Amino acid sequence: MLDRTYPAQVCSVARALEVVGERWSLLIVRDAFLGLSRFSDFQRSLGIARNVLAQRLEHLVAEEVLEKRDGGYFLTRKGRELAPALHQLMKWGDRHYAPAEGPPRLTPHRGCGGRVEGDLVCDRCGAHVRPGEIELVPGPGLAAAAAS
Amino acid sequence: MLDRTYPAQVCSVARALEVVGERWSLLIVRDAFLGLSRFSDFQRSLGIARNVLAQRLEHLVAEEVLEKRDGGYFLTRKGRELAPALHQLMKWGDRHYAPAEGPPRLTPHRGCGGRVEGDLVCDRCGAHVRPGEIELVPGPGLAAAAAS
Repeated sequence: MLDRTYPAQVCSVARALEVVGERWSLLIVRDAFLGLSRFSDFQRSLGIARNVLAQRLEHLVAEEVLEKRDGGYFLTRKGRELAPALHQLMKWGDRHYAPAEGPPRLTPHRGCGGRVEGDLVCDRCGAHVRPGEIELVPGPGLAAAAAS
Repeated sequence: MLDRTYPAQVCSVARALEVVGERWSLLIVRDAFLGLSRFSDFQRSLGIARNVLAQRLEHLVAEEVLEKRDGGYFLTRKGRELAPALHQLMKWGDRHYAPAEGPPRLTPHRGCGGRVEGDLVCDRCGAHVRPGEIELVPGPGLAAAAAS
């Protein structure tokens, strides 16, 4: 637990990171955005120990980021609201760590197909794009990895 | 280390999280945005063990998120490019975990003073705001904590 007595910890970044602030939790949320819902699918995707995965899922359910139903884990509205943070983190990763072939995933403007980068502006139609209007599709970096 | 053989790990979110994907690293970056640069200041702010802090700082320097000079740690350009991800994470935290008094920090449009939320649109002048045009100032939640 963070030291709450120091004003620097009265901070929404710190509070947010208490919920999703370690790699596994954010990767679970990412996988949920990619359509995964079952324990075994998260486990195969992330390759982490079952007890660690169970803890992280339980914590995300307790914080109402995920909800458990029909034998799977699904993003709540609060969980879906993490899309902009993941989008920005992905664009930062693309900029500095993308494979030579290009980004693993692209984020076209839904119905338009233009590129949407960190500024949330579509480079084709010029619209200011909202989170629900961004698609997530396989990019050149993913195809290259699958072929290798 | 993540299992790179599974395509889900060919992902810029995963790569980004390898660098800044645990709470301390992102909080160090946040503190650097707030103007902290000295080891002792990070240590006081975060209240973590010195050896853990030293490891995290060293890793952030190796990844060129921070640079060491004049006895302090400063954000590089690559580090400053994390501002949009931290902004979105902060807004998510504000929405779900802000103190009753309000957000600990506000993000006014520089030179205008309008509110800039996750959509990056200024609610006063309507401009589409870029990262460098966002200020970070104390909000009502921080004042309340300091007074208590």
